[in-house]
Amino acid sequence: MLKAPDHQVAGHEAGLGKLGPLIDDLGRFYKPLQGGNRGSEEVAFYESFSSNTHIPEHIRKYFPMYYGTKIMKASTGVDHPHMVLQDLTSARVNPSVMDIKIGSRTWAPDASEAYIAKCLKKDRESTSIPLGFRLSGLQVYIDDESRFYKPDRNYIRKTGPDDVRLLLRKFVSSNPSADMEIGTGSGPGPGPDCSLASSVYGGPNGILAQLLELKAWFEDQTIYHFYACSFLFVYEKRLGLKGAWSNAEVKLIDFAHVTDANGVIDHNFLGGLCSLTKFISDILSEIEDCTGTNGQVEL
Amino acid sequence: MLKAPDHQVAGHEAGLGKLGPLIDDLGRFYKPLQGGNRGSEEVAFYESFSSNTHIPEHIRKYFPMYYGTKIMKASTGVDHPHMVLQDLTSARVNPSVMDIKIGSRTWAPDASEAYIAKCLKKDRESTSIPLGFRLSGLQVYIDDESRFYKPDRNYIRKTGPDDVRLLLRKFVSSNPSADMEIGTGSGPGPGPDCSLASSVYGGPNGILAQLLELKAWFEDQTIYHFYACSFLFVYEKRLGLKGAWSNAEVKLIDFAHVTDANGVIDHNFLGGLCSLTKFISDILSEIEDCTGTNGQVEL
Repeated sequence: MLKAPDHQVAGHEAGLGKLGPLIDDLGRFYKPLQGGNRGSEEVAFYESFSSNTHIPEHIRKYFPMYYGTKIMKASTGVDHPHMVLQDLTSARVNPSVMDIKIGSRTWAPDASEAYIAKCLKKDRESTSIPLGFRLSGLQVYIDDESRFYKPDRNYIRKTGPDDVRLLLRKFVSSNPSADMEIGTGSGPGPGPDCSLASSVYGGPNGILAQLLELKAWFEDQTIYHFYACSFLFVYEKRLGLKGAWSNAEVKLIDFAHVTDANGVIDHNFLGGLCSLTKFISDILSEIEDCTGTNGQVEL
Repeated sequence: MLKAPDHQVAGHEAGLGKLGPLIDDLGRFYKPLQGGNRGSEEVAFYESFSSNTHIPEHIRKYFPMYYGTKIMKASTGVDHPHMVLQDLTSARVNPSVMDIKIGSRTWAPDASEAYIAKCLKKDRESTSIPLGFRLSGLQVYIDDESRFYKPDRNYIRKTGPDDVRLLLRKFVSSNPSADMEIGTGSGPGPGPDCSLASSVYGGPNGILAQLLELKAWFEDQTIYHFYACSFLFVYEKRLGLKGAWSNAEVKLIDFAHVTDANGVIDHNFLGGLCSLTKFISDILSEIEDCTGTNGQVEL
């Protein structure tokens, strides 16, 4: 039985007459091929990536599984080609999810003038240029009564650097709706409490450790340049509260604008990745300063 | 006695009626304040940097010494304000010099529309966008007879990624004029011989080690964003041939477009720095593969 995903925070949404992704109950995510060259480019990336023997196994786990393409009835009711991918939230109960588009530049050098102008405008109006990344969407699970904190996409689109810092804190807080000044992150007080920061961002398997593993690869890999690609952060609060094992996952998604690296590292992606890493490591340091706990991995 | 610098490879040159830098025989470099806000912005940077107590000493050494400003007779014959700086080649005999502008974006977010358009055009036409850096000029000392290999600036301006790779090899070669296919870098053969690569790029004090020290700082510093700033690489062949001590120096120059970091790392500079680091580390690896020597520092 196919349906629209429950935990989508960014991208096109399936709806009445609207083309969007679908999921089944076997853990698969059906992404309709986008118009123009984007759909075929994304398929080409998945095909190339799946068969590339130079991708280390410890890096492959950061990418969704790819099961090929399939022509099937789309969310619009009409037959359409889809990529069959791993559904990244299928095994999760009430996942908290964040989508972050990486890179200060979201256009490839060989894109059309019109497309470059459109992207450049968005990059300048968002935090992509100042921060090297921008938030595309998020949801944070609160409890069974309040369910999710899920700020409006129009708000997300307008966030400045300080809002991004605040939202990265809210993502690991038990009171994400707190609309106060940025707090210290140490327990109840003004602002989000960051109570899940050490278990989600910190620790040997936390998000920071995963970002650092990816960073080491990006400092060296000269296979692909990932334009307009996103990180998806996913974790479950119920598991996060249980202690050490963070259950947090980082995945890379959206590959419609991947190009050949031509022997050069992806300095645009790497710069944004390092900037995001610094934001997250700062949140962990602030917590440590306040509580004396050490949620941070060795840098 | 003031005169035009002997070893300038990029930037405005002093000449009859032309405003350019001057040097004295006491090791000082007089840089005329540029028009618009650029001159005053660069002075503001040097004043801020000199007095900033958060700059670690091991990082300060990568910047030229600053001795204030002085109104003096310029190369044009007319009084003009100058910055008084350290002359980075004064103690050098026949220095080989390379100027590399770092960052895929040479414009600050708050620049004027006209300035952004002008920079973006240059960034796209050069290797700044594909590589994250571009060569602005170089000279490589050959011997007392042939003196310097100093390719024309118009050639430098038009270099593509493969030319950049070749010029980075020529910079550490005894036959930089070799105009053949890219060689393997191992002794005589087709292309530049890279005979000085391990002593200049490699080793515990070589250029790669210095770039890695700067990289560690750029991953953390949220004080300045350095737009359109350059690395200057300087070494002396006669010392390089003597063995282990590479005598190579990395310096940062040109600070007319430095802005406040506002708590964010300089992801644009860092990306370019990592890309350049990879080029240089690749040259060292190729040499090691061919000769079995190890000029490379631990990464």
